[in-house]
Formats: sequence, C-alpha cells, structure tokens
Amino acid sequence: MAEDVAFIGLGIMGYPMAGHLARAGHQVTVYNRTQSKAQRWVEEHGGAAAPTPAEAAADAGFVFACVGRDSDLREVTVGENGAFSRMQPGTVFIDHTTASAHLARELAGIAQQKGFEFLDAPISGGQVGAENGVLTVMVGGDEGAFASAEPLIESYARMVKLMGPSGSGQLTKMVNQICIAGLVQGLAEGIHFAKRAGLDAGAVIDVISKGAAQSWQMENRAPTMIEGRFEFGFAVEWMRKDLGMILEEAERNGARIDVAALVDQFYAEVEALGGKRWDTSSLIARLERPQDK
Amino acid sequence: MAEDVAFIGLGIMGYPMAGHLARAGHQVTVYNRTQSKAQRWVEEHGGAAAPTPAEAAADAGFVFACVGRDSDLREVTVGENGAFSRMQPGTVFIDHTTASAHLARELAGIAQQKGFEFLDAPISGGQVGAENGVLTVMVGGDEGAFASAEPLIESYARMVKLMGPSGSGQLTKMVNQICIAGLVQGLAEGIHFAKRAGLDAGAVIDVISKGAAQSWQMENRAPTMIEGRFEFGFAVEWMRKDLGMILEEAERNGARIDVAALVDQFYAEVEALGGKRWDTSSLIARLERPQDK
Repeated sequence: MAEDVAFIGLGIMGYPMAGHLARAGHQVTVYNRTQSKAQRWVEEHGGAAAPTPAEAAADAGFVFACVGRDSDLREVTVGENGAFSRMQPGTVFIDHTTASAHLARELAGIAQQKGFEFLDAPISGGQVGAENGVLTVMVGGDEGAFASAEPLIESYARMVKLMGPSGSGQLTKMVNQICIAGLVQGLAEGIHFAKRAGLDAGAVIDVISKGAAQSWQMENRAPTMIEGRFEFGFAVEWMRKDLGMILEEAERNGARIDVAALVDQFYAEVEALGGKRWDTSSLIARLERPQDK
Repeated sequence: MAEDVAFIGLGIMGYPMAGHLARAGHQVTVYNRTQSKAQRWVEEHGGAAAPTPAEAAADAGFVFACVGRDSDLREVTVGENGAFSRMQPGTVFIDHTTASAHLARELAGIAQQKGFEFLDAPISGGQVGAENGVLTVMVGGDEGAFASAEPLIESYARMVKLMGPSGSGQLTKMVNQICIAGLVQGLAEGIHFAKRAGLDAGAVIDVISKGAAQSWQMENRAPTMIEGRFEFGFAVEWMRKDLGMILEEAERNGARIDVAALVDQFYAEVEALGGKRWDTSSLIARLERPQDK
C-alpha cells in the first residue's frame, strides 16, 4: 500500500534508503540540513522537500530518520521544528540512527505520551547495503508499530527483526560492534605478526581463512589491511562514537568488555595518526608505525 | 606409490591420521609412548608397532610425528632412541606437532647435517578434521622434500601449503591462533553484553551473523557459549601452550600483539575457574563469574 512518508537525513545511508521508498511507490517528503541535497534528491526521485523536520512529518503516516549522533537525533525529533511537534496520533517514527539506547527509550516515552510510536532501528550493511537495498535492521519497540512499519522497511532491507522493547535495536547493534572490535584487532595483530615473521601475509590468510579463524572481516578486509589501504568503509570516528555509547551502556549494566575498551583507545591512536576517516580495519596502522622506545 | 612410513604419536589427532595413511596403502609402523594404544592401532589397521621412535623410523622413507610439546618433539627426534638416530639419508621427517619455530629450524638444521629433511607441518581442523581426513596443513621447509611428502599428507588433508623455509609452518599456525584469540574474546564480550542488556543472545547472534561481525567461531561456538557448555573442542591448556610460544616469538621479532597477550592472561583466569580442559570459547566464563568488588 502506498503511504505518505517523511525521510529526515539524506546522508550516504539515508539518501539511497529514501530512494528505495520512493521506488516502492510511496510519497516521500524529505528533509536534510543541507537543503541543496534534498533538492537534488527530489529532482532524482520526485516527492517533495520540506524546510524543517516538522513540516516534513506533518502529513506522514511514517517518519524515517537517519542522522549522525544523539544530539542530531534530539534536534530532528524534540528540537525546535522537530518532527515530534507535528506528528499525528497513530503514526510511527522509525529511527535508523545508531544512537544510545537510553535516548531511544526517552523518545519512545515522549512519543507514547503524544499518541504515536517510536521504533529504534539501527542498520548494518554499509553504503553498499543501503544502495542495493539489502540492509540488516535491528528494531526495538512496540509489536504493532513494528508490524505496520516492516513492509516499508523491507524496501531497503534483507533482514528486519524486532529484538524486544524500546532500546533493543540499539543494544543489538552494540553487540555487533563489540564483536567486530575484538575480531578486527585480532586480525590486525595476526597480519602484523605474519609480516614481522617474514611470511607472505596474503598466502597465510589464504590458508587460515578456510578454518576456525575465518571471518567476514578476514575475507573482505585482510587484502586491504596487508596493503595498508583504508580510504573506504566504516570510519574510525563513527566506530568511536559507537564504542563511546557502548562503554557508557556497559558501565550502566555491569558488562565487562575489556578488549572493546582497549580497542577504543587503539582507535584514538589511529585518529592521532590522521585516521579519523579511515576504515575500521586501520587498527593495523598503529601496529606498523615506528615504535616508541 | 605405497611407501614404508613411520608414525610417532597416536593421540586424538595422530591416531586417525596414521589410519588414513594405512588406508591409502602405505606400510605404517607406529610408535606411541603408551604402547597398548599402538597395539590397538595395529589390531585395527595392520602394520607394526615399534618399541622406540628410532626403531619405528629405521626402515621408513617418511617419518611422521604428532606429539604434544617442544619437549616431547625433542625427545622423539634427538632424544635417546629418537628417530633421528636411525633415519636414512634421503628420507623426510614430517612434524605435525604445533611447536616453536626455533625448534623447527634447529631440527631442520640437524636433519640437513645428517642428510635427511625435516618439515614443520602443524595442522588445523581439530579431531573431526583428522577423522574425516580434511585437515589444513601449513608447511615450512625444503621444496623438494615438500613435493615428495605432499601426496602422503593429502591422505588426511584437504589443504596442504608450503609457506616458506623451515619454521614457516609453525609461524603460520601462530597467525591463526592470534586471530582466534582476539576474535573469540570479542565474541565473548558481545554475548556477555547482550545477556547483561537483557537481550535474547541467540536472536542477536542470528541477526548479526549475516554481516560484518560474522565468523566461523560465531556460527559454530556462539550457541554453546550462550549455554555455558565448554566440554569439547580445543582445550584452553593447549591454547595457552600456543600463546606462550607466540608471545616468545613476538618478543623475538618485535611484533605488537597486545590483545593476544591479554587473552593469554584471561585464559589463565579460566584455568583458575577449573577450565584447563574446556574449549577456547570458554573465555566467556570469566566474564560471567561473580565480579570481584
């Protein structure tokens, strides 16, 4: 069924995601902080651009957002001219931002008081996944709201799962990042050790990637790690944003994530090497810099 | 071509490996420290049992070994009644023990002086891989010796690769273990965090195992980690043996493997919890014990 929807935030993820919604036949009104980008989107896809999140959301049954940080999410929802000021009862706000679980719970509470629903729905799959419409979406919130939003989300996702009450989507994404932190560091140490030992690192990865050390990261990132190329992928500064929220959450629930905490410090060192925008696989760069004596 | 071969060490790996050599048509003379096990092997497979490594090796064109530690390997090669005392010029010793790279180089040097060859050839794939004859074998040593031994090794391996000069097989296996150390710790922290956050850890793994956090360990070990079952697999005490050699080697070549070193300490804590024989995935057990205040 074609719906009137709003999409807030046309970044490298949001831009193609909103495009999939338009191609699925929905009437999409977009909002973006840089308005020229919203104009370009409308030229390509039809629909309309609104000057504020509030105006974008005013007639929408479903309001999607995909912005950068907690502060951005706060601004486009409960800020001045935020979407929450104009959303109608019975509508659903679907937040694809990777944000904190406590902000998700707070916004879900405010939405409920106002008579609409809020779903936290962070994504994984990267820019390519967004462009190809094959993202994974981890959702927290109300079952009924999830059921009504799921068909729309499926226009750009291969897997959409309700993980539990508000905040559960964000917490699931955090587990993903914790696993990746240890995994990429292990892979970086392995490749670094292989080089120091005088081995052909590519040949080593080729052999060990058939067994118990195998991972998506090994198959997809080892070649570029060996070459020292990092100008692509998921940026270190975004991984640090996520790890910061994860460490806060772990503090709150008493989880012991020593290596994730350590890897956050290692990423700080990568940033100091100029790697803020490098892919997360750049953990190997700090191992290969000249050593401090 | 059927060969006269010797196999030293009929443990959970060596026993089935020697069996594959016998089934491939080779004449196998076995040696095992506990002689009753060698007798049992002969009853099942034919061939002969010898009372010492030296006597097992005396008429063999290829001598295989798969024992526990550097000290065991030293004993069955250059120790009293070791295989090296009776090996003939032109023969090849293939060592499947996971041992140190410097011992591999030392034994290769001694072998060369005596006119025969030594290949370091550690394996991965576990007991199931040995039984099904689908091991991965990482080899260091002379190309000609490798070419002559490869067809025999293939009777129990799916992948056999020459990685470089003597020691390279051991060093490659070390890279494998370094990658696994960080990876399993990341996975343990992720599952632990999921439980603390009140999520359904199995459902979380189900969702995130389709993306950038995917690994063999996640697919094969997460279910038992969630349940807290560790009575199987690759034992913590053997992983610590490997990590000990890895840390020595890293010290020697200046590789920085901070997380592998930390994980070795974590495994010491698992041993203190009674986990010496538990699978390496038991890293999660130390996270879930009551916390020290």
